[in-house]
Amino acid sequence: MCHDVEKVAVPLDRVRRYLEPGPVVLVSSAWQGERDIMTLGWHTVMAFSPSLVGCLISPGNHTFNLVRGSETCVINLPTTALTDEVIGIGNSSGREIDKFDHFGLTASPGTAVDAPLIKQCHAHFECRLADDSLVDRHGFFVWEVVAAHARLTPAYPETLHYTGDGVFMVAGEIIDRRSQFLPQML
Amino acid sequence: MCHDVEKVAVPLDRVRRYLEPGPVVLVSSAWQGERDIMTLGWHTVMAFSPSLVGCLISPGNHTFNLVRGSETCVINLPTTALTDEVIGIGNSSGREIDKFDHFGLTASPGTAVDAPLIKQCHAHFECRLADDSLVDRHGFFVWEVVAAHARLTPAYPETLHYTGDGVFMVAGEIIDRRSQFLPQML
Repeated sequence: MCHDVEKVAVPLDRVRRYLEPGPVVLVSSAWQGERDIMTLGWHTVMAFSPSLVGCLISPGNHTFNLVRGSETCVINLPTTALTDEVIGIGNSSGREIDKFDHFGLTASPGTAVDAPLIKQCHAHFECRLADDSLVDRHGFFVWEVVAAHARLTPAYPETLHYTGDGVFMVAGEIIDRRSQFLPQML
Repeated sequence: MCHDVEKVAVPLDRVRRYLEPGPVVLVSSAWQGERDIMTLGWHTVMAFSPSLVGCLISPGNHTFNLVRGSETCVINLPTTALTDEVIGIGNSSGREIDKFDHFGLTASPGTAVDAPLIKQCHAHFECRLADDSLVDRHGFFVWEVVAAHARLTPAYPETLHYTGDGVFMVAGEIIDRRSQFLPQML
């Protein structure tokens, strides 16, 4: 159970609803007394059940050592309310600062993993390492989401989508085209 | 050179500008006299140079056999002008129809690979297979983009971002936060 009364459990096979649109996420981790947060835009859903997500984390990031060691992380979903924090976290190093303290973010305990959640985010996906076979070659971690929580409202959060060069696209209009889909595709 | 006067070459290390925001893409391919298009939302940028993109393509898709055999594909970027086509392509099988003909899309020759481009799309990323080591286990193809072309305008195309359940998020406002970035992060 999530220690955050404003959030509810998300069925693990519905993680795609949050991550498939391609938002910038904040990856939080902890290992041997250290903790870190990184801003990450290079991720993809890989399977519904088990719920798999692939992420690129390069060895140059402090987070790399923490997730390599702990084999866990939390993928947190920030909204535009956290734009300054997303940018600040992406432009600083966890080798020099504690990013929770520096950016005034609250570390809540994970419910299924030891890594901390970032309470101010809209949703949290607690992950255990599922496949590290492309880590050495590409920095590509395949994670299994083992617990997921999200705010009930707004139904479609105003997420940030990075285009490079300091420019973000903000999530816009929602269009429902359910009537055009085959039943088995829904 | 792209056989489409309205498009210009995109430097290969700038493919992230189009794909990192997480849009739905159309993957086109050809192999041994067959061709196909699939709608795909499970992809991630993996490196700038070489320009690598990872995509999930399950063996259930007709496209799987074509890209497995040809070791090439084109990742095409549709905008909301092609919403009906994106949905139709995702809800039909290339085993039963030729999707170019059925959806009235124009196959233009690739410039660096034998797979066809979809002329009506905003941008095209021609790809050669770079790493197939996770194909059998996860359906995960690592592609190297070897040629890229895009329309000059609009600078930020109105892309589609899938959330599941027949619901799309459309790309919204563009916000420039360049001034908050370290020079080396730009």
